[in-house]
Amino acid sequence: MIVEKQFFTFARNKPMVLECGARLGPVTIAYETLGSLDEERKNAILVLHALSGDSHMAGRYSERDPKPGWWDIMIGPGKAIDTDRYFVVCSNIIGGCMGSTGPSSTNPSTRRPYGLDFPVVTIGDMVRAQKALIKHLGIERLFAVIGGSLGGMQVLEWSLRYPGMVRSAIPLATTARHSALAIAFNEVARQAIMADPNWQGGNYYGGARPNLGLAVARMIGHITYLSDEAMRRKFGRRLQDRTDLSFKLDVDFQVESYLRYQGKKFVDRFDANSFLYITKAADYFDVEEQHGGGSIVKAFSKARAKFLVVSFTSDWLYPTYQSRELVQAMKKNGLDVSFCEIEADWGHDAFLLPNERLSSLIKGFLECVGRGL
Amino acid sequence: MIVEKQFFTFARNKPMVLECGARLGPVTIAYETLGSLDEERKNAILVLHALSGDSHMAGRYSERDPKPGWWDIMIGPGKAIDTDRYFVVCSNIIGGCMGSTGPSSTNPSTRRPYGLDFPVVTIGDMVRAQKALIKHLGIERLFAVIGGSLGGMQVLEWSLRYPGMVRSAIPLATTARHSALAIAFNEVARQAIMADPNWQGGNYYGGARPNLGLAVARMIGHITYLSDEAMRRKFGRRLQDRTDLSFKLDVDFQVESYLRYQGKKFVDRFDANSFLYITKAADYFDVEEQHGGGSIVKAFSKARAKFLVVSFTSDWLYPTYQSRELVQAMKKNGLDVSFCEIEADWGHDAFLLPNERLSSLIKGFLECVGRGL
Repeated sequence: MIVEKQFFTFARNKPMVLECGARLGPVTIAYETLGSLDEERKNAILVLHALSGDSHMAGRYSERDPKPGWWDIMIGPGKAIDTDRYFVVCSNIIGGCMGSTGPSSTNPSTRRPYGLDFPVVTIGDMVRAQKALIKHLGIERLFAVIGGSLGGMQVLEWSLRYPGMVRSAIPLATTARHSALAIAFNEVARQAIMADPNWQGGNYYGGARPNLGLAVARMIGHITYLSDEAMRRKFGRRLQDRTDLSFKLDVDFQVESYLRYQGKKFVDRFDANSFLYITKAADYFDVEEQHGGGSIVKAFSKARAKFLVVSFTSDWLYPTYQSRELVQAMKKNGLDVSFCEIEADWGHDAFLLPNERLSSLIKGFLECVGRGL
Repeated sequence: MIVEKQFFTFARNKPMVLECGARLGPVTIAYETLGSLDEERKNAILVLHALSGDSHMAGRYSERDPKPGWWDIMIGPGKAIDTDRYFVVCSNIIGGCMGSTGPSSTNPSTRRPYGLDFPVVTIGDMVRAQKALIKHLGIERLFAVIGGSLGGMQVLEWSLRYPGMVRSAIPLATTARHSALAIAFNEVARQAIMADPNWQGGNYYGGARPNLGLAVARMIGHITYLSDEAMRRKFGRRLQDRTDLSFKLDVDFQVESYLRYQGKKFVDRFDANSFLYITKAADYFDVEEQHGGGSIVKAFSKARAKFLVVSFTSDWLYPTYQSRELVQAMKKNGLDVSFCEIEADWGHDAFLLPNERLSSLIKGFLECVGRGL
């Protein structure tokens, strides 16, 4: 499966008015598609990515590309999201740094990177930009919107903001709003970036980048994506390249080495300001406040989609009780909702890892939607 | 209760040989005592502090001192650790920065602060220094050793290293060894400090201090001491000094403001290098490896004390299963052990907060020990 990153630019003349009131334009969206849109344009699935993801959901950019997209286990011919049957679209969120307009993009009014002049965008703004892309692709109604974590928030937002455009929705490992704990982790990660003197108030483009701060931020995030059990299995107290403790302030344990590696790898591909903006958007997201005037049940009175909600037992960032709350609100509105808590040791990241149960759930659900069940 | 910080210096001529093989001397221990040692010298209780604690366990330094010691709710006349009955001692750990010898102390061979020339100390080294103090105070056998978290590790170490000196032991909210998750959080916190350019390889004394890095480290730690439930109750999604979201990369939520405050407050009283050394000591601690040749059951074959082990339901840093493992190893050795998992929402920090159940457990246990039950 060879894919190509494409770009769609809109709001050239008439800027997008964001939820914060600021204007943004032109807006470019990087996106990729797999499969073909059928004649009735009814087989389109929109995949929404999480914090560090991008439009490259599956396949490879060339024959020699060593690494496929981030959800290649789920998307492809014959896979759960079957590209022989569905036209699958994934776009990079605005505020991101993988081709869509974000803080590292050029500000047309200064001809320099936005930096902190980039306005604070919300999950709602991200979804509104995605809608412009979907319209551009000639799609009136999506067969399904699917995503995990921050992608799951976008799924919820789609189902509430554009209920007529969403036939089915699969929010995975997500929440109606961040808990204080989730906000706390994001805030510490942001503080780590902003404490890096190279951050320079966000105005670091062209100079040294706040890599040390961003690496710490990533390490904090990475811990929250794993579980106690997953880390015990993966690392335990095993030492890294040594038989005894070093008795230095250095790497002793494998888990330390792994985290440092994850931090270093991340800074090569991600922009620190995008990390700030995207985590802020996640913290701001609040279905109850933004769609229900303080009531989650009222919020879902707008929804029309058929839902499949999935949580994972070891996810302590967005624990199952948060998914149950969504499911209850949907049920109280008489919506057609299936819910599954999957037994998995891998923590929040479980939705990204091979899981037969998750694949068959998604496959079966999409088939039911297709048969009008 | 007015207390005075006292100092005991040893290893003046013959340095202490640490577990890493390095020599350290002279070694000063800052300590405080409450109550009186009885004639038989059998009523001494040693209280062991956690990461950010110190010798100031209870009481005040003067009539005007606004804030009592860190465990004032537990220690005092008529309290669970009753200073009318017991002679209570608490000393600052070596490696610390509250009066005992640590990385900010003067290195006698250079006449400058040790910085990273300070050797990596272990929980075992801390306990050996405490033993020197206890001997100095004329105590042959401790009525009880009590501590939570890192203090609990010291309790375990006392009971295994000096079984003849420990009549009873109360390890609270602690573990036989750090999980990969606990190591991971410590490692990220250390990275945050070492990423601060003011850290200067640990050689920052007399210049600007790595306050931003240390604040981030403290914030990370602070999150792990709380629980999802505790944070929801304490902060939820309440905004700080505002009615609407700021739409800036600034403080919006109370939990963010609280964490920033905790970070700032901490840097005024704590040394960044001490944070590095103490967290490393905690990560190194491993009862199984260091006392049992790989077997926790074998490790406790040395112990002679009567134990009270306490865990807290919402402690996700050292979850109850880790306390149960200790209890099982003690029981398999026929030791007299009581175990209680206390229902508490406050996470790991619960042992520091007022808790009627914990107070009555400790009080009752000490009475039983006193009656020889």
